[in-house]
Amino acid sequence: MGEMIGTLYGVGVGPGDPELMTLKAVRIIGAGDVVAYFSKRGKAGNSRTIADKHIRPTAEQIRLEYPYTTEIPVSDPRYTAALDKFYDDSANRIDERLRRGQNVVVLCEGDPFFYGSFMHLYDRLNGEHETEVVPGITSMSGCWTRAGTPMTRGNECLSVLAGTIDENQLVQRLENCEAAVIMKVGRNLPKVRSALSRAGLAERAIFVERGTMSEERIIRLCEKPDDRAPYFSLVLVPGRQAGQ
Amino acid sequence: MGEMIGTLYGVGVGPGDPELMTLKAVRIIGAGDVVAYFSKRGKAGNSRTIADKHIRPTAEQIRLEYPYTTEIPVSDPRYTAALDKFYDDSANRIDERLRRGQNVVVLCEGDPFFYGSFMHLYDRLNGEHETEVVPGITSMSGCWTRAGTPMTRGNECLSVLAGTIDENQLVQRLENCEAAVIMKVGRNLPKVRSALSRAGLAERAIFVERGTMSEERIIRLCEKPDDRAPYFSLVLVPGRQAGQ
Repeated sequence: MGEMIGTLYGVGVGPGDPELMTLKAVRIIGAGDVVAYFSKRGKAGNSRTIADKHIRPTAEQIRLEYPYTTEIPVSDPRYTAALDKFYDDSANRIDERLRRGQNVVVLCEGDPFFYGSFMHLYDRLNGEHETEVVPGITSMSGCWTRAGTPMTRGNECLSVLAGTIDENQLVQRLENCEAAVIMKVGRNLPKVRSALSRAGLAERAIFVERGTMSEERIIRLCEKPDDRAPYFSLVLVPGRQAGQ
Repeated sequence: MGEMIGTLYGVGVGPGDPELMTLKAVRIIGAGDVVAYFSKRGKAGNSRTIADKHIRPTAEQIRLEYPYTTEIPVSDPRYTAALDKFYDDSANRIDERLRRGQNVVVLCEGDPFFYGSFMHLYDRLNGEHETEVVPGITSMSGCWTRAGTPMTRGNECLSVLAGTIDENQLVQRLENCEAAVIMKVGRNLPKVRSALSRAGLAERAIFVERGTMSEERIIRLCEKPDDRAPYFSLVLVPGRQAGQ
C-alpha cells in the first residue's frame, strides 16, 4: 500500500455574508479533517467567522496569525522577511497534516486567486500535494451588488486597481478605463480621492465599507465627510453606460 | 389593503458548474413563483441548465429568446433597435407577473452586474419594483481557478477587457496592466492574439473554453493551433508576480 496523502483545498468563502458561500465550499469545508484560516492578531479571523457553522465539530482548527508588522515600513527588507517566514511556517504546519493523510481546507475571504494570502501557501505546497481550489464571490462583486450599481456593459473595460500604488500611476490608469474598482483603500483614501478628482471621476465614485457584512456602509465618495476607511473598504466607479 | 406587488430577483448562478451556485441563489430560485432566463434561439439556456434542479416544479418558466441578429452588423441602428425592443418586451412580460404579486427570479450566468443581459431588465424595472440582486461567481474567477492560475497579488492591477474593442486600443490597455482577462473572445481571437503579441504578453496568455463546464478546455494560447473559439471562451494573462 502506498503512503496516504491528503488533499489541500483553497476554498473561497465570499465577501462576508455566509449565504454567499457556494454549495461546493460548504461541502468541502464540512468534510475537512483540518480547517486553517488567516487572522490578524487579536481578531477572530473573518473567513472563519463566515464559514463557522459548516466546520465539523471534530475538525482540527489551525489559526495562522499574521506577524505584527505594522511598525515596519513595507519597503523595509525586514517586512518581506517576516512575511516569508510566516508563510513558510504556515505551509509547514499544513504540510505535516497532509503527510499524515489528512485533508486540509484553507478558508479564503473572497476568491483564493484574486489577491489574498492563500496564494503564498499554494506556491509552497502545490508542487508536492494534490490541490483543489474553489472560487468565491469576490469582495468587489459583493460591493457593487449591495450598492445597486451595474458595473460593466457591452465593450466597457474594468480596471481593478490597488489603492497602494503611486498617485500618478492611479490617475493614469483611471484615465484609461471605463469602469474601475479601487481595492485596498484603507489609509490610502486621501490619495485615492485626489487621484479620482484628477481623472475626472470623483462624481461617479462610490465608497463601500464592509460590503455584505452587518456593519455595511455605502455612500457616494463626494458625500463622505472624513477620510477614515477600514481595510475592508473599496471604491467603485461604475462604467459610463451603467447609468443609462 | 394595498396592492400586492412581487419582488424582482436577479440571481447570479455562476460560470457553469451547478455546485458553484451560492446558498442564497439556491434559496431564492427555490422560492420563485416565476423563473425567467435568457437563451439563444434553439438552445436550452445555460443559466436555466445550471439552476435546473432548484427550480420549483410548479414555477412558471419564461424563456427570453434573443432576436436573431447575427446577420445585422452591430454598428447598424437596426441591431440596437431589435435588441431594445426585445428587452422592452421581456421587461413587460416580467412586469405583468410582478403586478400580479408574483416573485420573479431572473437567472443570470456569472454575476448579474458584470456584463450580461439582466442589467437591461434592471434598468427598465428597478424604479417601479422591489429588486434584489444576488452576486454570482464570475466566469473569469471560474476560469482562472480551473487553470490553476493565481491572477493578482499585492499591488498588481487587473484589467478586464472586451475582445470586441479595436486592436490598437487592446494593445494600449494591455501595456498598462499587470494582469488581464480578455472576455468576449469568440470570433475576435485572431485580433486578440495579435494584440497580445504586440503587447509582449503572448507567452503568458492562457486560453480557456467553457471553464467549469463539462466540455472545458484549457491551453496556453501559443499552443492553440487554430483560431476557433466559442462565445464562452476567454483569455487570461496572470500577473507577473503570479509565477513566483
